[in-house]
Amino acid sequence: MKNLTLKTPRGNYTVYVGNVLFLSDVIKKELFSNRKVFVVFDENVPTEFVYNIKNALKRANSDVFLHNFSSGEENKNLESVLKIASKAFEVGITRKDVFFAVGGGVVSDVVGFLSSVYMRGVGFYCVPTTLLSAVDACVGGKNGVDLPEGKNLIGTFYNPEAVFCDTAAFASLNERDIKNALGECVKYALIDGGKLWKYFIDISLNPPENNDYRHIISDNQLTEKLIFACLSVKKRFVEKDQFDKGERAVLNLGHTVGHAIEAMSDYKLSHGECVAKGIVQELRASVNMGFTDKSVLTDVISIFETLGISTDNPFLAEDEIEYIYVDKKRAGDSINIPVIISPGEYEIKNIGISEYKEFLCRL
Amino acid sequence: MKNLTLKTPRGNYTVYVGNVLFLSDVIKKELFSNRKVFVVFDENVPTEFVYNIKNALKRANSDVFLHNFSSGEENKNLESVLKIASKAFEVGITRKDVFFAVGGGVVSDVVGFLSSVYMRGVGFYCVPTTLLSAVDACVGGKNGVDLPEGKNLIGTFYNPEAVFCDTAAFASLNERDIKNALGECVKYALIDGGKLWKYFIDISLNPPENNDYRHIISDNQLTEKLIFACLSVKKRFVEKDQFDKGERAVLNLGHTVGHAIEAMSDYKLSHGECVAKGIVQELRASVNMGFTDKSVLTDVISIFETLGISTDNPFLAEDEIEYIYVDKKRAGDSINIPVIISPGEYEIKNIGISEYKEFLCRL
Repeated sequence: MKNLTLKTPRGNYTVYVGNVLFLSDVIKKELFSNRKVFVVFDENVPTEFVYNIKNALKRANSDVFLHNFSSGEENKNLESVLKIASKAFEVGITRKDVFFAVGGGVVSDVVGFLSSVYMRGVGFYCVPTTLLSAVDACVGGKNGVDLPEGKNLIGTFYNPEAVFCDTAAFASLNERDIKNALGECVKYALIDGGKLWKYFIDISLNPPENNDYRHIISDNQLTEKLIFACLSVKKRFVEKDQFDKGERAVLNLGHTVGHAIEAMSDYKLSHGECVAKGIVQELRASVNMGFTDKSVLTDVISIFETLGISTDNPFLAEDEIEYIYVDKKRAGDSINIPVIISPGEYEIKNIGISEYKEFLCRL
Repeated sequence: MKNLTLKTPRGNYTVYVGNVLFLSDVIKKELFSNRKVFVVFDENVPTEFVYNIKNALKRANSDVFLHNFSSGEENKNLESVLKIASKAFEVGITRKDVFFAVGGGVVSDVVGFLSSVYMRGVGFYCVPTTLLSAVDACVGGKNGVDLPEGKNLIGTFYNPEAVFCDTAAFASLNERDIKNALGECVKYALIDGGKLWKYFIDISLNPPENNDYRHIISDNQLTEKLIFACLSVKKRFVEKDQFDKGERAVLNLGHTVGHAIEAMSDYKLSHGECVAKGIVQELRASVNMGFTDKSVLTDVISIFETLGISTDNPFLAEDEIEYIYVDKKRAGDSINIPVIISPGEYEIKNIGISEYKEFLCRL
């Protein structure tokens, strides 16, 4: 088991990364006795996993209430928040009690937001059950729900009291789930430039047999290391920039173009797939602008290919830039875009949108 | 004009108390240029007052959008939050822009909450237009909306960037509006025990002619002083206890019983009337318990009588305690209740509910 402590203005919290965490006493260590715990779990999470959490909470002298949640993006809205709030109120969850979010990004977004506004804020614990959520969304304190007008328009910054990344949760993930996380992992590798970058370079040089990327989750120690490495990179930025006003901008690598692709595909492409495509296109633009050596782009394409992740782009760069323009319009005619100079070295560049369009379109 | 600076973990903010503030350059001082300002105003606020705010904002180089709000308690809900959010999104309010709340407690609760969750938090400015809001709710950072299950169940702690208490706003208040604030004012006088307490004692000894309490708002300097004095008392507690976990409990004086009366009257009695009745009953109980000298109770009753505020209670103490019990039940069989030993001296007592019932029922 590995621990990572995140500093926040309102106190620190610990991320536990390990296998079968809920058979250990780690919950007891993090949760005061005699608190009611309202567990919201994604209906796709294996029953046994939820059952283990319930038992661990009972061993920690908590009253446990389980609440099933259907975690499609279409349920990431205020109606879901209200529904869970009513249920929690009905069973008597008060200011001193806590919520557990057991699931992927949608569950932690909805329950994190609810925790931040329920009776003006109650305790919140996060149990990511997707690799994507474990390597990225579970730290940083951002949550949000969608409005008909757009995604994540309503939300808060609210940190959990602890995060439990249990690799046992990932056993049932399929190939697409795993690949969905790898876009973000490669992003962290590019930003870090250290061991994590070397890990992916090594994979691209010595691909596993039959391109079977289940090995990433079938070896618990490897999964732990990967999660720990990604979160360690993210930690450096979120601690310096709790409210996303500056330093965090680099974490947006691949996301300016990635979000455009995601929206243009009507969210049929997964977030991870779009981030992978976005990283490649943004890198190509920065090679064209003369900021980045072409070898970095070649390495990244080779990594994604070895991982079996397509970096082909079904959309025209001209259309993407239109989308980016509309999306960012209100901030003016230029965008801030993180640029990788070389792995581990980056800058935030402010670039005119029409200028960026040229570099993005050029092959 | 008087200024009061409130310290918070995320920076300080200033409360300006003065007459015709919006003809001065105080807004220019507090608001960066080139921000869009979405002004939500209570439909009962005089048009001229809203117009002055709009002009002051324009002089400060802001784009102004006005949004009319009907401020009954029945609109203090998430539907209102959503409606305003959609409108704000439509006119292009982004992360760097701000909301203004112009109205009483309902408007500042709804708009304060919205500001705290709109795109994960945008700037919020508060312009209280009721005396009750000016002497109490406009500082402290609490906001909230109601659920069908209860009042203020959804909310956050979120401080404004500035508060503008313009006494010009109070010119159109009627007698009931003014009296609605005086319950809280007497509460602050009891907690403070200094000049504010002396002010009310003097009033009870030398009541104004014809019991005309409009003099409180017809003399701007007096209104300023009263607001400033109440907020100065509140400041001491909220700065020590931003998230309402301890020291603020004393601000609950009169509210344990007051809230019961308010709910039992189906909110037909105003908050201020109920707080006045609550203060008197809670004081009587603490006299019965031997904590408080009877002279304090006599003084307070005399003050309220001179102010023309009825302290008669239409409900039975037995029924009130039932309500308190159901309301607080989940925190156990005892309640924390602030007790005034003498003006300026107080303690928080933990008292068994059945024991408290006895003292509350005894005349």
